[in-house]
Amino acid sequence: MTKPTFAVVLSGCGVQDGSEIQEVVLTLLAIDRSGGIYQCFAPDIPQRDVIDHVSGQPMAERRNALVESARIARGRIKPLSAFDPAEFDALVLSGGYGAAKTLSSFAEDGPDCSIQSDVERAIRGTAAAGKPIGAMCIAPVLVARVLGEVDVTVGSDAGTAADLEEMGAHHHVAGRGEVVADLFRKVVTSPCYMLESRIGQIAEGTEAVVRALIGMMGGAA
Amino acid sequence: MTKPTFAVVLSGCGVQDGSEIQEVVLTLLAIDRSGGIYQCFAPDIPQRDVIDHVSGQPMAERRNALVESARIARGRIKPLSAFDPAEFDALVLSGGYGAAKTLSSFAEDGPDCSIQSDVERAIRGTAAAGKPIGAMCIAPVLVARVLGEVDVTVGSDAGTAADLEEMGAHHHVAGRGEVVADLFRKVVTSPCYMLESRIGQIAEGTEAVVRALIGMMGGAA
Repeated sequence: MTKPTFAVVLSGCGVQDGSEIQEVVLTLLAIDRSGGIYQCFAPDIPQRDVIDHVSGQPMAERRNALVESARIARGRIKPLSAFDPAEFDALVLSGGYGAAKTLSSFAEDGPDCSIQSDVERAIRGTAAAGKPIGAMCIAPVLVARVLGEVDVTVGSDAGTAADLEEMGAHHHVAGRGEVVADLFRKVVTSPCYMLESRIGQIAEGTEAVVRALIGMMGGAA
Repeated sequence: MTKPTFAVVLSGCGVQDGSEIQEVVLTLLAIDRSGGIYQCFAPDIPQRDVIDHVSGQPMAERRNALVESARIARGRIKPLSAFDPAEFDALVLSGGYGAAKTLSSFAEDGPDCSIQSDVERAIRGTAAAGKPIGAMCIAPVLVARVLGEVDVTVGSDAGTAADLEEMGAHHHVAGRGEVVADLFRKVVTSPCYMLESRIGQIAEGTEAVVRALIGMMGGAA
């Protein structure tokens, strides 16, 4: 097998209104340390909102999800509209509220949420190609909303678990650093910061997701 | 020895106008995995500028270094003015252009740069307490400007090395993941993204810095 390649989807830069930064960085680290290569993507659209991460209050600003995501990726990022599932071995959806506010309307609409069109196309295309998808933190709601029946975890949050079940998914409780792997549908999820954690436990989760994704590669489409 | 405690100083959220995000996250990971505890700090002042990390061009915006740094720290951050060297075993200064633009005027003024007052006080106070200081990427210029004679590295950049020598420091060339440790002055530096690197090599650098800092703790002040 040549070096496994991962497309990593971001939604901004910061847990309250974009991607959870630590989860993204530790995903990139896990990919690199597993011998893989990554390319970051984000939709070129405005973020739903901008939150002051000290006060937790909204700020009267507009920020673009692609431009802000570029901060984590050190400028090496592409618009998600340019994503082609044929070019990658796996798709990874990072967590943070951006997944529920900018990549989808889950924060507002719950199980009836709409999914941003580039995100939906990326999930559908990857699944149709028989390639694995990883999702962390709250991002499993994106996969469940697009694919319907799939085994996932968001940790132990009962409300989100009920929403996932309403979308047709099966929720499984998981602890820090643990993953739920749907071997049939090739979907790997881990709670990450859906559970109060130390940063080292987040790294264990991202390492486990990347390891499971690599294990799912190369099977028949 | 009880758990070693680290104060980590940030300057915003993004390599071009603040802290280099990956270096910060991997420093926090290295501290956690070494059994340590961290507290993030940033000066409560406007960033020098705001850079679009896709285009590299300035944006017509104002952002606050503390508020933006809070994105990396998930809101758990304090103003640097509240830093007390008596409460920590080591001080860590993260890299990114924010160190050269917001924590100091190095980007503009070179070896004659001024150092932001909270940053200068933190460095002086930590050194006076006989406690170790770590600095990554371009941040060694802060330590050199405040302490003068100190052995440091910023990798292999000849221009910055010459500036450091002009400030009274001794520059040593170092490679990816390597550190330069000044055992007498208790200062540890590593090039990190001053050298084109894979993210795994940055993690090696931050792990080496944290390990060296722990090795320097507990000596006589």
